[in-house]
Amino acid sequence: MNALEKAFADAAAVGITQDKIEVGALRMNVARFGAGEPLLLLHGWPEFWLVWQPVMLRLGDRFQLIAPDLRGCGDTGKPTPGPDASATAERHAHDMLGLMDALGFDRVGVIGGDLGAYVMQAMSHLAPQRLKGTLYLCTPYPGLGHRYGQPGHLIEVWYQYFQQLPWAAELIGSSREACRLYFRHFLDHWSGDNPTVFADLLEAYVDNFMKPANIQGGFDWYLSSAPNRRLWLEGRLPAKPRIEIPTRFLWGRRDPLIPPEWSDRLGDYWTDYTIAFADAGHYVHAEAPDRVAEEARAFFSLRQTG
Amino acid sequence: MNALEKAFADAAAVGITQDKIEVGALRMNVARFGAGEPLLLLHGWPEFWLVWQPVMLRLGDRFQLIAPDLRGCGDTGKPTPGPDASATAERHAHDMLGLMDALGFDRVGVIGGDLGAYVMQAMSHLAPQRLKGTLYLCTPYPGLGHRYGQPGHLIEVWYQYFQQLPWAAELIGSSREACRLYFRHFLDHWSGDNPTVFADLLEAYVDNFMKPANIQGGFDWYLSSAPNRRLWLEGRLPAKPRIEIPTRFLWGRRDPLIPPEWSDRLGDYWTDYTIAFADAGHYVHAEAPDRVAEEARAFFSLRQTG
Repeated sequence: MNALEKAFADAAAVGITQDKIEVGALRMNVARFGAGEPLLLLHGWPEFWLVWQPVMLRLGDRFQLIAPDLRGCGDTGKPTPGPDASATAERHAHDMLGLMDALGFDRVGVIGGDLGAYVMQAMSHLAPQRLKGTLYLCTPYPGLGHRYGQPGHLIEVWYQYFQQLPWAAELIGSSREACRLYFRHFLDHWSGDNPTVFADLLEAYVDNFMKPANIQGGFDWYLSSAPNRRLWLEGRLPAKPRIEIPTRFLWGRRDPLIPPEWSDRLGDYWTDYTIAFADAGHYVHAEAPDRVAEEARAFFSLRQTG
Repeated sequence: MNALEKAFADAAAVGITQDKIEVGALRMNVARFGAGEPLLLLHGWPEFWLVWQPVMLRLGDRFQLIAPDLRGCGDTGKPTPGPDASATAERHAHDMLGLMDALGFDRVGVIGGDLGAYVMQAMSHLAPQRLKGTLYLCTPYPGLGHRYGQPGHLIEVWYQYFQQLPWAAELIGSSREACRLYFRHFLDHWSGDNPTVFADLLEAYVDNFMKPANIQGGFDWYLSSAPNRRLWLEGRLPAKPRIEIPTRFLWGRRDPLIPPEWSDRLGDYWTDYTIAFADAGHYVHAEAPDRVAEEARAFFSLRQTG
């Protein structure tokens, strides 16, 4: 039993289930826990459902937690093995709406960050009537603008370009050692250079990414989002109506990728939101699960009857 | 005998010598060929002296060609194995002036590109009286300005940031396969996506970079140049006097890293120059050695009595 299988066995032992659910052409892996109002948990890159376990265990008494592996990630996998530029935020959003259909949920609350935050924004534009509320943990959004590619920030965002190259996944997956060196960086550095957050899970993450096509599956997002990302940085992304869904932002104070001061333009994109800051880096859900659970309980309880 | 040793044996068979020359604390590997006026050949990244062989063989009847492995590269190596942020253009320039002293040359002509072009600019500011003329083959210079980091160009320059990370060299050198995937990209892509230019030499390049500390040796340049590169991109690099050394630019028309239209600001940095364009990518010396030899013969013959 490798580290990932061990982690899954531990999760199963505390009652987390994993099932495959057909969503269009995708056989989606979905972890679930608890009972009550449905909450959809959308992971980022380089993550998969397991990153949500601490939050799931803290909320299961009140909510039904649904943590899918997004297209290309975890045990959902991807339809074709090579680079695929079609895994846009809209495509992921349709996957999620399809999952809600398959599970029989008309409306859900959503928590997510990073890639998950892009998917939440796409869902908000595509099907706002299906969202009770959205809680963002780390939020790439168009208001970052040129700052996301400014000279002093290129040391943080180089991977968004490297990961578009057709040989990049082969290089990172060329050995377990290469894979570990790469993902350890993103796990530790984005946790505010704190190697303790993912220390116990590092080998499980390496097991996950060493699965066939799993590295490319994550990299597909960078290939798929490249045209829009360039328009963002150039300030040429076509404007969309502001999102009116009730929204809460819980922003990691020490996130090196999307620093808290760049939350200054949220009002240009959301009409009904509040923001708070957490003592965490990029992985607020992994670093501060108590805080995330507390926020979710307060925020979604208010929306329960909505 | 590996591919690199084979390449060195072939070079020796046609009369190219390689010697170790003490330059300060550095034991510098220097390839030499031919007799006549001295021409110093400064390679770029990811290169070492071998990239000059086609040009050397074409000019040996008229010039004494001196092709050192720059600090950290080829068989010159580096004083300490880990990341070293002190390998600036000025440090390399002092290495080259020290090499000239050791060889007894008061003045030389210089040809170079990429990293070599940075070193030539530093030598031009530090010791202009020791340069007869400079022939640039691909020329990063401050006039590239913010364009070098603009959103549409980040897919080309991400490596300048990745290579600053303390674990990057370990990842790329984690196996021969990883090393090959990485360097093949830069060799082929910068040759205008032409895999034939370095095809016969690919394994020799892999042999070179798999030598201990050789990958980090090249990456040191990106760590060392990072502060100045940021100032460039931000337009805040302190101005220096224009270079008055007679200069020729031979710019690859198909260079994806530094496209020919970005030569538009050379006049802000050089007073006495001409420019021509070659049917090549970034590695003009490897892709169009006939043209480089012809240019060198014409340009440095004019300067012979200078």
